[in-house]
Amino acid sequence: MTSDNKKKIKAERPRGFEDLSGEDLLLLEKITSTIEKTYKFYGFEKLETSIVELSNVIGSFLPDQDRPNEGVFSFEDDDSRWLSLRYDLTSGLARYVAENYDALPKPYRRYQSGWVFRNEKPGPGRFRQFMQVDADTVGSKNPLADAEMCMMFSDVFENIGIERNDYLIRLNNRNLLDALLDQLGLNSINDSDQYLTVMRSIDKLDRLGFSGVTELLGKGRKDKSGDFTKGAELNTEQIDKIINFLKQGDKSQKTDRKSALEKLEKDFCDSDKFSDAVIELLAISDILDGAGYNEDRVAIDPSVVRGLGYYTGPVYEADLIFPKNNDLQNFGSVGGGGRYDSLVERLKGVKVPATGISIGVSRLMTALKILDQKVNNKSDIDVVVLLMNKDDQVYYFNLASKLRDEGLLADLYVGDGSMKAQLKYADKRNAKIALIIGDDEIENNTVTIKDLNKGAELSKDISKNEEWRSSKDTQVNVPQSEMIKMIKSILSKSS
Amino acid sequence: MTSDNKKKIKAERPRGFEDLSGEDLLLLEKITSTIEKTYKFYGFEKLETSIVELSNVIGSFLPDQDRPNEGVFSFEDDDSRWLSLRYDLTSGLARYVAENYDALPKPYRRYQSGWVFRNEKPGPGRFRQFMQVDADTVGSKNPLADAEMCMMFSDVFENIGIERNDYLIRLNNRNLLDALLDQLGLNSINDSDQYLTVMRSIDKLDRLGFSGVTELLGKGRKDKSGDFTKGAELNTEQIDKIINFLKQGDKSQKTDRKSALEKLEKDFCDSDKFSDAVIELLAISDILDGAGYNEDRVAIDPSVVRGLGYYTGPVYEADLIFPKNNDLQNFGSVGGGGRYDSLVERLKGVKVPATGISIGVSRLMTALKILDQKVNNKSDIDVVVLLMNKDDQVYYFNLASKLRDEGLLADLYVGDGSMKAQLKYADKRNAKIALIIGDDEIENNTVTIKDLNKGAELSKDISKNEEWRSSKDTQVNVPQSEMIKMIKSILSKSS
Repeated sequence: MTSDNKKKIKAERPRGFEDLSGEDLLLLEKITSTIEKTYKFYGFEKLETSIVELSNVIGSFLPDQDRPNEGVFSFEDDDSRWLSLRYDLTSGLARYVAENYDALPKPYRRYQSGWVFRNEKPGPGRFRQFMQVDADTVGSKNPLADAEMCMMFSDVFENIGIERNDYLIRLNNRNLLDALLDQLGLNSINDSDQYLTVMRSIDKLDRLGFSGVTELLGKGRKDKSGDFTKGAELNTEQIDKIINFLKQGDKSQKTDRKSALEKLEKDFCDSDKFSDAVIELLAISDILDGAGYNEDRVAIDPSVVRGLGYYTGPVYEADLIFPKNNDLQNFGSVGGGGRYDSLVERLKGVKVPATGISIGVSRLMTALKILDQKVNNKSDIDVVVLLMNKDDQVYYFNLASKLRDEGLLADLYVGDGSMKAQLKYADKRNAKIALIIGDDEIENNTVTIKDLNKGAELSKDISKNEEWRSSKDTQVNVPQSEMIKMIKSILSKSS
Repeated sequence: MTSDNKKKIKAERPRGFEDLSGEDLLLLEKITSTIEKTYKFYGFEKLETSIVELSNVIGSFLPDQDRPNEGVFSFEDDDSRWLSLRYDLTSGLARYVAENYDALPKPYRRYQSGWVFRNEKPGPGRFRQFMQVDADTVGSKNPLADAEMCMMFSDVFENIGIERNDYLIRLNNRNLLDALLDQLGLNSINDSDQYLTVMRSIDKLDRLGFSGVTELLGKGRKDKSGDFTKGAELNTEQIDKIINFLKQGDKSQKTDRKSALEKLEKDFCDSDKFSDAVIELLAISDILDGAGYNEDRVAIDPSVVRGLGYYTGPVYEADLIFPKNNDLQNFGSVGGGGRYDSLVERLKGVKVPATGISIGVSRLMTALKILDQKVNNKSDIDVVVLLMNKDDQVYYFNLASKLRDEGLLADLYVGDGSMKAQLKYADKRNAKIALIIGDDEIENNTVTIKDLNKGAELSKDISKNEEWRSSKDTQVNVPQSEMIKMIKSILSKSS
């Protein structure tokens, strides 16, 4: 609206949303494509579902349902139906499978990457739009499908460049905890809000520690800001038993999985439900053993429950392991998943067992940046062609084209600035070379090639940044016929 | 919510939103990455802005502002501010530039691909979520920046595989039409809704033809469904003059640009504004000439105005050219752009001239599919390893791993189905080979390799699809030591 032109509006993003550029964006793309490739090589096929879904179809299985708007961004369509931005990729997958069930291979194995949205309180490193990369096998109750998730998860980390022992996949079965709750006389809370409150409380163990979870399982907890979260109202005996169970998780010692499961059964088992859950984990563990994925990569940890409401069996969570006393020691998980045998049934009416993992790329990125894992190609630009003579712009354009034909990333300066402004531009673009062709060069059929990396090195000793730019030490003048050869020679040295 | 499990909800997408899989998704990714690569080689750098923006910051410059909700999906944040899903990538770029102005190179050249959202009435090929790939130069009023947009646009089509003369970039200047409106005594309508109605009416020329536009410039138009769109209320003389001007566009004859501009000036010019607009186009045209982009690629067409409200000068639109009498003859544009010198000023308070293009990948995809441009790799899966013996799943997993280590896309069947179900699965996955290792094979240390492409060929003559699957003609039994060699040999023949 042209009428708006005069009144200035403050340029800002909504809270909790971010832009990505430069190295951050390269890192995001590198991580995303590495994860996608890992899934693809396991035989998964790509899918892209819509970002907007019907609210009632995807439901809300989020951990923070008690907040206003239940954690989901929603709005009304003009036919009065409610739409939501997807909060994960699993709920959309369930909708897709139910909608296209007959046409799909059984089992259906798909991967997907995409932005998901949470209407939550934003905070440092806590965004309301973030990137997930998922893989799911829908239509198989075979433990092989679960084992494969753990192995892919592990492969993803190593393919990204995180070394063994710097990450850990923690494996559990929700039914273990369910059986324990039954045993504590809490079987009536299944299918209730109290059950979800218990699960969500336990899911916060990473962040709040055992004391925080103890509070949340009891009366409730007041956080630093003074906000009070209502608890699950369990009694002391029940809480002690649960906390003791959660403590069986063993991040540092890496007990072998079989012994860990045997100990759990010995100390806690009181029902067939518990035994069955152990047997299911043993089957997964056996496959992992046979494929050489030992407890240094996938360990049993009864404290893993995952926050989402739809898991029904085995659950997995992946952590980065940071040295003790590191700020990131309680960084928490960078992804997880599990078996959700009822999610498709909700829409399809028939049982369709499924299992999957989801990796939070934005969180992984934050961790990698702190770990100082840099992407190699700091700059994508090889050459900036300066626009020395405004009356002959075509000449410079064609020169840049010629460089592009040689496979060089050649940026033509298309602004209206002075030579100084143009060199500053080349600097900001992290270009490796500036190509200068003024009247002298044209007359003598030569080009001046300025090595900007060399300039940057020299400038460390020179107080004024401008000096090296005009300095002759960083540039060579060669015949036009030798231009390409000389540029490639400089680039090969700088990379 | 576990309590939902029992009641079945209908699995459906919201109107106007789609999923992408298989070949469609491969085509989308191929087109998107080709466009991105073209921009990148011109020296543009990638940016990713958030999908959600503050409503007042991005405003609404859409052609269908008169509809309810003004074409944008919006919802209220919990701090009572309104948020919108981005309706294009340009408004977010303007916000990004205004927010980060000092840190950016000048001019700032970025490309971006991403989903955008329009709250419009969906229809065939008309989606409410679609993919755009944009390039913009912000901070230059140099016609070189505009010329470059036209050249990149042209390069994109040829890089995608659309041949010269099968596409056309149409170039115009909005100020030509503005000057004409002044001349018709309509200068008072600038900055008004009537001005936008005129522009939007003209923008519908592709779809409605001259008769439709004539109605929209007058009293209004009733469409086939009976819906009435109010017109711009111009008088007959004004309408005739405008229509006559629009008809100077010359899609088929391809008059050279200079002659076309001279004719426009001779027949219509009555003001400095008109002359200045012609001069601006001549400067762009000269650069195009010098770089060898003639009117067979970029032609002058005064009927191009673009629907978005923020353009202030040169505008470009790209059409695919279909043979006469083809259903797609009026397919319309697959992208466009132009100069928008006031969009950043709205947020930044200072003038920041800018120009850019936006390509609608979803539309381009629809066109390419109708044109029968197929993506080569129909299937990504090389081998499906059948799970013949459920008691030894690890054996099959490790075999699949071995194939992956050899660079093969090996999918392990992880379901619980019979051999028949597994071969059906391999079929649905479009796998090239099924690997069968039953008790006999294990005993003799051999593998059975089934060539599924050969089977598919043979099956043309066989009534029952199952027959070829069990047929021995399509399979070979080799020692395990020769497995990799034999698989690679079959794959090399099938590709």
